[in-house]
Amino acid sequence: MLSRYTPPEFATLWSSTTRYTTWLAVELAACEAMEEADLVPGGTASAIRAQQLTLQPVRIEEIEKTVKHDVIAFLTHVEELAGPQARWLHRGMTSSDVLDTSLAVLLVEASRLLEVRLEALCQALSRRADEHRHTPMLGRSHGIAAEPLTFGIVLAGHLAEMRRCLARLRAARDEIAVGKIAGAVGTYAHLDPSIEERALAALGLRPETVSTQVVARDRHAAFFSTLAIVAAGVERFATNVRHWQRSEVGEAEERFTVGQKGSSAMPHKRNPILSENLCGLSRLVRAAVVPALEDVALWHERDISHSSVERAIAPDATSLLGFMLERATSIVEGLVVYPEAMQRNLDRVGELFFSEAVMLALVSTGLPRQSAYELVQRSAMRAIHGEGRFRDLLGADPDVSRRLSSDALGRCFDLAHALAHADAIIDRALKT
Amino acid sequence: MLSRYTPPEFATLWSSTTRYTTWLAVELAACEAMEEADLVPGGTASAIRAQQLTLQPVRIEEIEKTVKHDVIAFLTHVEELAGPQARWLHRGMTSSDVLDTSLAVLLVEASRLLEVRLEALCQALSRRADEHRHTPMLGRSHGIAAEPLTFGIVLAGHLAEMRRCLARLRAARDEIAVGKIAGAVGTYAHLDPSIEERALAALGLRPETVSTQVVARDRHAAFFSTLAIVAAGVERFATNVRHWQRSEVGEAEERFTVGQKGSSAMPHKRNPILSENLCGLSRLVRAAVVPALEDVALWHERDISHSSVERAIAPDATSLLGFMLERATSIVEGLVVYPEAMQRNLDRVGELFFSEAVMLALVSTGLPRQSAYELVQRSAMRAIHGEGRFRDLLGADPDVSRRLSSDALGRCFDLAHALAHADAIIDRALKT
Amino acid sequence: MLSRYTPPEFATLWSSTTRYTTWLAVELAACEAMEEADLVPGGTASAIRAQQLTLQPVRIEEIEKTVKHDVIAFLTHVEELAGPQARWLHRGMTSSDVLDTSLAVLLVEASRLLEVRLEALCQALSRRADEHRHTPMLGRSHGIAAEPLTFGIVLAGHLAEMRRCLARLRAARDEIAVGKIAGAVGTYAHLDPSIEERALAALGLRPETVSTQVVARDRHAAFFSTLAIVAAGVERFATNVRHWQRSEVGEAEERFTVGQKGSSAMPHKRNPILSENLCGLSRLVRAAVVPALEDVALWHERDISHSSVERAIAPDATSLLGFMLERATSIVEGLVVYPEAMQRNLDRVGELFFSEAVMLALVSTGLPRQSAYELVQRSAMRAIHGEGRFRDLLGADPDVSRRLSSDALGRCFDLAHALAHADAIIDRALKT
Amino acid sequence: MLSRYTPPEFATLWSSTTRYTTWLAVELAACEAMEEADLVPGGTASAIRAQQLTLQPVRIEEIEKTVKHDVIAFLTHVEELAGPQARWLHRGMTSSDVLDTSLAVLLVEASRLLEVRLEALCQALSRRADEHRHTPMLGRSHGIAAEPLTFGIVLAGHLAEMRRCLARLRAARDEIAVGKIAGAVGTYAHLDPSIEERALAALGLRPETVSTQVVARDRHAAFFSTLAIVAAGVERFATNVRHWQRSEVGEAEERFTVGQKGSSAMPHKRNPILSENLCGLSRLVRAAVVPALEDVALWHERDISHSSVERAIAPDATSLLGFMLERATSIVEGLVVYPEAMQRNLDRVGELFFSEAVMLALVSTGLPRQSAYELVQRSAMRAIHGEGRFRDLLGADPDVSRRLSSDALGRCFDLAHALAHADAIIDRALKT
Repeated sequence: MLSRYTPPEFATLWSSTTRYTTWLAVELAACEAMEEADLVPGGTASAIRAQQLTLQPVRIEEIEKTVKHDVIAFLTHVEELAGPQARWLHRGMTSSDVLDTSLAVLLVEASRLLEVRLEALCQALSRRADEHRHTPMLGRSHGIAAEPLTFGIVLAGHLAEMRRCLARLRAARDEIAVGKIAGAVGTYAHLDPSIEERALAALGLRPETVSTQVVARDRHAAFFSTLAIVAAGVERFATNVRHWQRSEVGEAEERFTVGQKGSSAMPHKRNPILSENLCGLSRLVRAAVVPALEDVALWHERDISHSSVERAIAPDATSLLGFMLERATSIVEGLVVYPEAMQRNLDRVGELFFSEAVMLALVSTGLPRQSAYELVQRSAMRAIHGEGRFRDLLGADPDVSRRLSSDALGRCFDLAHALAHADAIIDRALKT
Repeated sequence: MLSRYTPPEFATLWSSTTRYTTWLAVELAACEAMEEADLVPGGTASAIRAQQLTLQPVRIEEIEKTVKHDVIAFLTHVEELAGPQARWLHRGMTSSDVLDTSLAVLLVEASRLLEVRLEALCQALSRRADEHRHTPMLGRSHGIAAEPLTFGIVLAGHLAEMRRCLARLRAARDEIAVGKIAGAVGTYAHLDPSIEERALAALGLRPETVSTQVVARDRHAAFFSTLAIVAAGVERFATNVRHWQRSEVGEAEERFTVGQKGSSAMPHKRNPILSENLCGLSRLVRAAVVPALEDVALWHERDISHSSVERAIAPDATSLLGFMLERATSIVEGLVVYPEAMQRNLDRVGELFFSEAVMLALVSTGLPRQSAYELVQRSAMRAIHGEGRFRDLLGADPDVSRRLSSDALGRCFDLAHALAHADAIIDRALKT
Repeated sequence: MLSRYTPPEFATLWSSTTRYTTWLAVELAACEAMEEADLVPGGTASAIRAQQLTLQPVRIEEIEKTVKHDVIAFLTHVEELAGPQARWLHRGMTSSDVLDTSLAVLLVEASRLLEVRLEALCQALSRRADEHRHTPMLGRSHGIAAEPLTFGIVLAGHLAEMRRCLARLRAARDEIAVGKIAGAVGTYAHLDPSIEERALAALGLRPETVSTQVVARDRHAAFFSTLAIVAAGVERFATNVRHWQRSEVGEAEERFTVGQKGSSAMPHKRNPILSENLCGLSRLVRAAVVPALEDVALWHERDISHSSVERAIAPDATSLLGFMLERATSIVEGLVVYPEAMQRNLDRVGELFFSEAVMLALVSTGLPRQSAYELVQRSAMRAIHGEGRFRDLLGADPDVSRRLSSDALGRCFDLAHALAHADAIIDRALKT
Repeated sequence: MLSRYTPPEFATLWSSTTRYTTWLAVELAACEAMEEADLVPGGTASAIRAQQLTLQPVRIEEIEKTVKHDVIAFLTHVEELAGPQARWLHRGMTSSDVLDTSLAVLLVEASRLLEVRLEALCQALSRRADEHRHTPMLGRSHGIAAEPLTFGIVLAGHLAEMRRCLARLRAARDEIAVGKIAGAVGTYAHLDPSIEERALAALGLRPETVSTQVVARDRHAAFFSTLAIVAAGVERFATNVRHWQRSEVGEAEERFTVGQKGSSAMPHKRNPILSENLCGLSRLVRAAVVPALEDVALWHERDISHSSVERAIAPDATSLLGFMLERATSIVEGLVVYPEAMQRNLDRVGELFFSEAVMLALVSTGLPRQSAYELVQRSAMRAIHGEGRFRDLLGADPDVSRRLSSDALGRCFDLAHALAHADAIIDRALKT
């Protein structure tokens, strides 16, 4: 976790204090369930709870250096603090019962933190899409001028993508909200499935259908894949900001704060560094997917190769994505939009984007499609080479004028017609 | 697509003939919708349909060499075959309207082919899990003998994972069942949203909420991620088969067919090559995920960088996974299981796996957990070093016998008790 | 292998005919070495060679269906064709002796085919870099106007990168030029190391230092990593072409051939589709790296999980890269450069890129660096906001004019000075 | 960086203190070179050096919050500490001159730290390979008993791989030992190439052939790819340890330290957790490769998307690999080897691995290879099914005894002959 890219809530969530506190919460939930099943003396958990133990991560890690086992070190420390009654904790359980159930609690919480941020991003995109419903802009495919659209449509596209991501993230959270308290190889040899069910419910989780020693790792692979898809969506937005802010395009730019310096060498520069940063961060979130997939095929009832991977990617990928979503929201909110530049870039195309309307009008007159295409391309190419205005060149082409009156040709050059469905499109994204 | 790893249905699905036939189906569906909207003369589509055109991929590719544009080449060829009425096709559409809608049709069909195979795998796993409900087996964590379970539980774990995969695949299919007929930059400049809706419905698809020139690629990224998760689940099963078939384990093995040869040098060998192959193939399916994620951030309203990626990964990843599922099903069905070897391996552990039961019994007598752990470990280590039977060493340890009577100790060594919940676990997987 | 992206030489190289021919070449080289060691009757190999066998891949695959072992199927077929003397082939060898040695022969040849293409790309870059040594161009960082350079410098940067790639590819070829004829587990149980050495030398290979049943897969991982680095270099060039060709930049573009059509909807478009395609293909080549790395950790003396991976990535990654290099060379050679557009874009920046020269001049007068920075930024921001020419605004700022005379200020605005080292830089790339 | 997996030297290397100290070293080296070129007053660098500044990372980060630019924040802080003479630092330079040159210094040092560890691993492998030159062991392909080898040969294979990795790492270090002090877009607009050359030489670096604003990122991609190949080699070794330590194999195991606990539930377990951990960590190191490759294609003269990626992967991948190499060395050194278990596993195969010798003997008598194969397989299958000793079954088969005398058959069953080349093989690895 790079502190630079870690929002405070994520730093707290993934701290060793939260980790051990969560372990204790799992042990106590299991203990209470065992009390109800008369496996453990009643009142044990509440007595330990009443002690309000202050777990000391440093001490746990010290013990771990000897026993080389993190959960045993933790239990030893709890016994140091809570006295003999702590021996009832962890009864019939295996380390993974604690670890995997805790990981589920933490990932569910991480997902919630991400969902809040993703909702905020959606709201920001909604506001700006609504604001720019009718701001004409040049649509570009291949980086080349294509046909007009509105900036609102573009933002609505990002909004629709982010809403899909929100649905995916919620589904991934549901998949990961699964723990296990089923003993060494998942057979409930020293427990009973009802204990697991009760304990997990208290923690907001469901039992794994069939666990091995661990919760199945396909759930985690699905979770991390989802994070990467969200990150890719943010990357798409960030890539577009970078394009809009290019010197030659200049249609929108990141808010430049007072005191900010663009370059140590060139005082005049205002660079889209936040968006570039988001592109880099998305590579990091994406890099968690393959290791998570490689973690699935554990040997027999489990090996521990997934553990180091998850120690890294669980905090890193969730925190980075949390940071990305915050930064993306702030870029959306602060984005300085230049409608006049958008108009200027539209104008510069010399109405070439009406070529399709002309072609369709020609086809309507009975001309085969390919002939119409070639007829329009002829004038377009001349316009591109500076031989005149596209509209005029078409009008002067006898093969065109023979088919289309001056009026009919003029009707092909209508921006309002081209953007007639903007509201309908944007509303589809805003309202779903 | 390696023919070796491509089931026939997938070879057909991804043939150029199917591709162009699907393009035509999309054009005709769009044409019919335009007829209803009076944009195109009524009866055009049905007249072309009636011609039962035989598209010639070779001819289309020949034209493409000149025009360097696949859809234009296709349309030119259709016009060659169907005559002037074909000029009404593709009206107001852009290439991606055809390409992306067709890709959705093909991916939906690919998903269906995969789901059928995944269901077959689930059925095979169900049968074998049911068959081996009560076949005792050594559970292993870290490759080391742990506690007993049944082979049915192990298979039920794979079954539960595959059922989750099936649900994911259906969700991914739903996400990808989206087309677009919205024109050059998704603005319906020369069409109307109602035409898109009608045409797509005829193809079993929904419209993209907000399209650019293309359908958004986060959908495809989610689809390919899902394939990789399924493949990882198959890899987990295959890895376990490889372990079971190890010479020293010998608990189960792939069916060896008559005439098969294990090694060109060593006539005695029977190798789990099908399962090893599945492990390799899962790497290939997994390798499609990152490119699919990299495809998301297209520039502005689209660039075409995703196209070559999809030309490769769409046929490859779906076919490979189809092959994997067929092969996995056949391995499950043919798996030769050796219950007596499972029992022998269980026996060889010398009942060490009852150590936890003994430890819990000691804790019940009031001994702190860590002391109980160390007490049991003492005898276990001696047993491992060949100093006697674990059960006897414990009985002879005064620190144990002081707390547990011979009878009480004996009750800790009970396989039936350890496997008491096997049916309940297996039924959870079978019944969901 | 997508035929669309496979140059003919690679199609031949990876055909089943070439594969089996190479296997036979390996068997015969080994046979000859065994003849010299008197393990096999002298003249066997030359007699078989003299038969000029026409291997039939279809027949081999038919046999494989029964024996489920490719090399045994191959040997059976050779025996069918060459008669009883063929039984001397493969003596004391294991399948991998043939397969891995053949793979080395094929990868070495693939590398040679790639090197030829990479050299051609370097030559094309050299020519164009030399041609545009003194063509001024706007340097851009973050997509924002920075300082001037020349187009030749930019191309020289790509050239230098490609030359590094060529050196890496040669090193990777050397690493992969390793075979093994060491028997089942690499112990030469039925052979002698001298036989391996002689046979491999005849094939242009060296023996693996210590083989298991196979040649170690770190060599292949290094090879495929190298391909991905080359592909990334091509992607960098292609990305730049896409930027240069953007409508708003227009500094260079891919050659547009006669008859080519840019868009099915928009006749006026000329899209950088070749370069976009290269960006997509680089994702595919990159996707081979992780599977190749995952192939390294084979179990014990080998498992066969790497085999299916290599069946896919060896032909795919080498062919795709071969295609990429050809296409990149053709883009470089045909690139239509617009020096006047480059000059226009430079002019549009309004000399802001001389800001650093002004700042350094101010520092030379004794002003602290940060004060100088802020002083220059003040005028730059005003110029950006359209309040005047940068040069004039600076001259009119008393804090500047107090320190720099009008002449001194003028000397800061000198393009020739900014580009003084262009030749030196370009020559470093051309001459190494 | 997870402190759990970060050796102290790497924690120091990647601390913010070392980072800023390295920046200052680069600025001072550049300053000295500029003094010699009379661009800066003589003695500036040495005067600043004499002040022995104590840079305060916290203060720098505080300034960065306002200026949003790390190098400007750093320079401002240096000016705070060193007074007005510091304004001569960074003259004509751009941030990347400092950042990329510093990164090169740090990566070179990281590589040196890794090489030391890799050499130690090679030494440990050498010692153990030498120790077990003649310890017979069962060779396994596909996890199935194959032919005998010695444990020394196996370790020599890992040694040879690690030696190749060492050579690759040195080559990668050489590639990365490249800085740049060439100004905003690499044109030396305000400097001179000779200054760069002198300054970099003082830091142990060479100049980039043609830099953009940054050093070309293909160098870094090659560096991180190399780390992943080393990690994959460690993973291969760790995977084998896990196999050797399996309960059913039991041929070697990780040293179990006093006080260590294998499982919180099962006191008798001794798990290969260090090796499993190495397998997980290799996934993390591998995960750095694709982002590094994605960093290559920066836009124009650079964008800053690579920066966040490198902030994460440079410390993480190098530290993790450093930890892996230390841990692997300690596993090799402490590995508890059980030659008697190796012998027992060899014996258990019932001499089936001599099947190839028998087959070759049969071929020598004139039998076609495939007939010999089937003849031997017949007895082998019977032996596997418990119908007798392989050797006896062969002797009793008239098709065999007709061709091979009892003596001739006996000579096929000779372990010493099978291992005759062990020394030669091991020496190849030890001596290179």
